[in-house]
Amino acid sequence: MPLVHQTRLIIALDLESFDKNVKIAKDCAQYCDSFKISWPALVYGFLEGKGNLVREVKKASGKHVIVDWKVADVPHTNEKITEMAVRMGADGLTFHGFMGQDAAQPVFDVGSSHQTDVYLVVQLSNPGAEKWMSPLVTQMCEMAKKTAANGVVVPGARPDLIKKVRELVGKECHILCPGMGAQGGKPGDAIRAGADFEIVGRSVIEAEYPPKAAYDIAMELRKAQGY
Amino acid sequence: MPLVHQTRLIIALDLESFDKNVKIAKDCAQYCDSFKISWPALVYGFLEGKGNLVREVKKASGKHVIVDWKVADVPHTNEKITEMAVRMGADGLTFHGFMGQDAAQPVFDVGSSHQTDVYLVVQLSNPGAEKWMSPLVTQMCEMAKKTAANGVVVPGARPDLIKKVRELVGKECHILCPGMGAQGGKPGDAIRAGADFEIVGRSVIEAEYPPKAAYDIAMELRKAQGY
Repeated sequence: MPLVHQTRLIIALDLESFDKNVKIAKDCAQYCDSFKISWPALVYGFLEGKGNLVREVKKASGKHVIVDWKVADVPHTNEKITEMAVRMGADGLTFHGFMGQDAAQPVFDVGSSHQTDVYLVVQLSNPGAEKWMSPLVTQMCEMAKKTAANGVVVPGARPDLIKKVRELVGKECHILCPGMGAQGGKPGDAIRAGADFEIVGRSVIEAEYPPKAAYDIAMELRKAQGY
Repeated sequence: MPLVHQTRLIIALDLESFDKNVKIAKDCAQYCDSFKISWPALVYGFLEGKGNLVREVKKASGKHVIVDWKVADVPHTNEKITEMAVRMGADGLTFHGFMGQDAAQPVFDVGSSHQTDVYLVVQLSNPGAEKWMSPLVTQMCEMAKKTAANGVVVPGARPDLIKKVRELVGKECHILCPGMGAQGGKPGDAIRAGADFEIVGRSVIEAEYPPKAAYDIAMELRKAQGY
């Protein structure tokens, strides 16, 4: 399933409870374009004996699901991790590029041969990432472009960086922005700067009524597009 | 459980079959000091409905177990991933430092408060890692030393780099070396260059008789220490 522009919202399902994550996926499906699942939520689901959260979220929501694994290993292991993402039913996968082209290549190769999107992390959204990731932004964007990554991940609270990355990767490559809400970005700001999707976690999943929170953010993203 | 010097061998349990990994752990326990488990083996175990491979390997072998997750996310998520490693029963965890000090800190903090070892990946063993990881070796070693990491991960086929890293991190910090056997390093070479442990995967787990392969490598490592 491809990632398409509708609400422009991606919800990060980061709760420890499998059932709560699935319920949020079901309740919020109409207000987002994808759900993102990182390692803890996935593994907690297994430890609870509940099975594969990726499949369950897809079943409950009918949506695109990204496994946000930030793959950063050697080529042989990256290939196996990407194959595992495919086997688990993921529509997309995040990975790092600083391990070198030979380590990133199997992620691109396995992903593209199974229509699983691959998203290269250009820079993380924590302040400390400035030190060693920031100097490589141009090179990471070149890697993403050269290998036809489906998208790149860029901090949402950095409009200047989003603009720069857009120039580097072109229009075809999606820009996904985490760091919105609890991490400091104001919903809509990344879209206004040229991003394709904003990723929101805590502001939705820890809200008293998550569908309302998701709806409100989706409306902000609509406004940010000028509707 | 701390990682102690006996045979100096760490076996990477990378097979997809949960039962085969557990059997190798049981059969090879006496020839190694630790077992290393990466994401695919762990998740395949869950997908098979077999449960937590970390606990099962510990139970079968009585040995130290490292989850080789190469954590590389933002601070909040890294904290949750490290807590999960603790909860799963891991004695050690690998992580990257290039995401910055603020992202690495929760790994150190959670690890040290639960006596779970943390191992910082100074450089991966694939050739492509030379490009962007190699220039940061000194800074990664400084981070490991400053935050009292239990160890660092350095390519085993690079004796020059092992020597340099030893000078930078001092004697108290363990040097763990992957890339032995199938990836090109000759067993014993990393120990001779000053490493504490050599990590071997395919040469043992894909051998016709894994305990024999593990025994043979352990003997090489003994020789490398001058016995």
